[in-house]
Amino acid sequence: MPVHTTSLELATRGNSEITDITQEVAEELANSPIQTGLLTVFVPGSTGGVITLECEPGLVRDLEEAFERWAPSSKTYHHDRAWADGNGHSHVRASLVGPSLSVPFKDRCMTLGTWQQLAFVDFDTRPRKRVLILQLVGE
Amino acid sequence: MPVHTTSLELATRGNSEITDITQEVAEELANSPIQTGLLTVFVPGSTGGVITLECEPGLVRDLEEAFERWAPSSKTYHHDRAWADGNGHSHVRASLVGPSLSVPFKDRCMTLGTWQQLAFVDFDTRPRKRVLILQLVGE
Amino acid sequence: MPVHTTSLELATRGNSEITDITQEVAEELANSPIQTGLLTVFVPGSTGGVITLECEPGLVRDLEEAFERWAPSSKTYHHDRAWADGNGHSHVRASLVGPSLSVPFKDRCMTLGTWQQLAFVDFDTRPRKRVLILQLVGE
Repeated sequence: MPVHTTSLELATRGNSEITDITQEVAEELANSPIQTGLLTVFVPGSTGGVITLECEPGLVRDLEEAFERWAPSSKTYHHDRAWADGNGHSHVRASLVGPSLSVPFKDRCMTLGTWQQLAFVDFDTRPRKRVLILQLVGE
Repeated sequence: MPVHTTSLELATRGNSEITDITQEVAEELANSPIQTGLLTVFVPGSTGGVITLECEPGLVRDLEEAFERWAPSSKTYHHDRAWADGNGHSHVRASLVGPSLSVPFKDRCMTLGTWQQLAFVDFDTRPRKRVLILQLVGE
Repeated sequence: MPVHTTSLELATRGNSEITDITQEVAEELANSPIQTGLLTVFVPGSTGGVITLECEPGLVRDLEEAFERWAPSSKTYHHDRAWADGNGHSHVRASLVGPSLSVPFKDRCMTLGTWQQLAFVDFDTRPRKRVLILQLVGE
């Protein structure tokens, strides 16, 4: 069976919160009918992104500060003038970081490095229920 | 048939113009021999990128301003000293944003969010004819 | 055979050094059992990234300067306070650029543009031996 598509549900707090999803994705992979191939995590939405990082508290803060430098939350955005939902910076950050990340796997294990975790970043400005798409293509 | 490769032709104006390609890609997908799998849009060139965004005029302006902050067009680039084509900032932006985006699909529909569109960004400084690669891998 | 996974070894110097890997990847592809499909280069580690660029010396310098603007090496990072390895900026840059890049291929040739090369960026602060994952999915 060459394609297997599932989803992952998350409760997030927003404001560029970084959620480590490595364990949840690894468990889906361990139980999948596909042994070797390419795994894609995809965010169906325009205020979230997927990254890899060494997921320790110091770096998490560094990334939150970097997102703030790249698209300051204090700036006035044209998006907010039209929609007044105050999350223009969330959209800009999400489009920069990207909604999609693909990781090769072998024997139902991702080829991540030892200090490399897979994480979802919720750039929106409020708590949300998120559903990520997880798709395996392979054999 | 597990792989299907086509292309998409666009006439663009450049200067970080954002072109919504969701409809064109969805039509290619609707007519493809593959029902479920992974769709990749790839830019064969070094001055274009692929993103997702909520494609409304306010956010489009916000993103154009963000690209200008990240790699100002007014700056002097080493690339321009060598080639004198004045698009050093175009190359830097394109390498940051990336030429490739992969989206899972099911029943010939991309798993995009409701307010999430797929777009090509032409960072070059002049109108161009662009050919994007569209590839489906699946079953 | 729909999946083929190999690796690519590189000796890198770090400090955002950009290494053109187009030729090595093209050779692996030319000898692969898969003719058409999607090629993914993945960095198993949290201080490296994969990009495409017009790989000429001027643009290489422009990108190194852009990385320095986006996450200055002179800044103090929370990551460094905890681990004292002085590579906080390396981690931030790597998470921004991303560890994964997927390129469609046909007849064992990548669909790259004429002036578009595939490159590994080593953001770490010291010379390293790197092993990149190269995976082909297709037919």
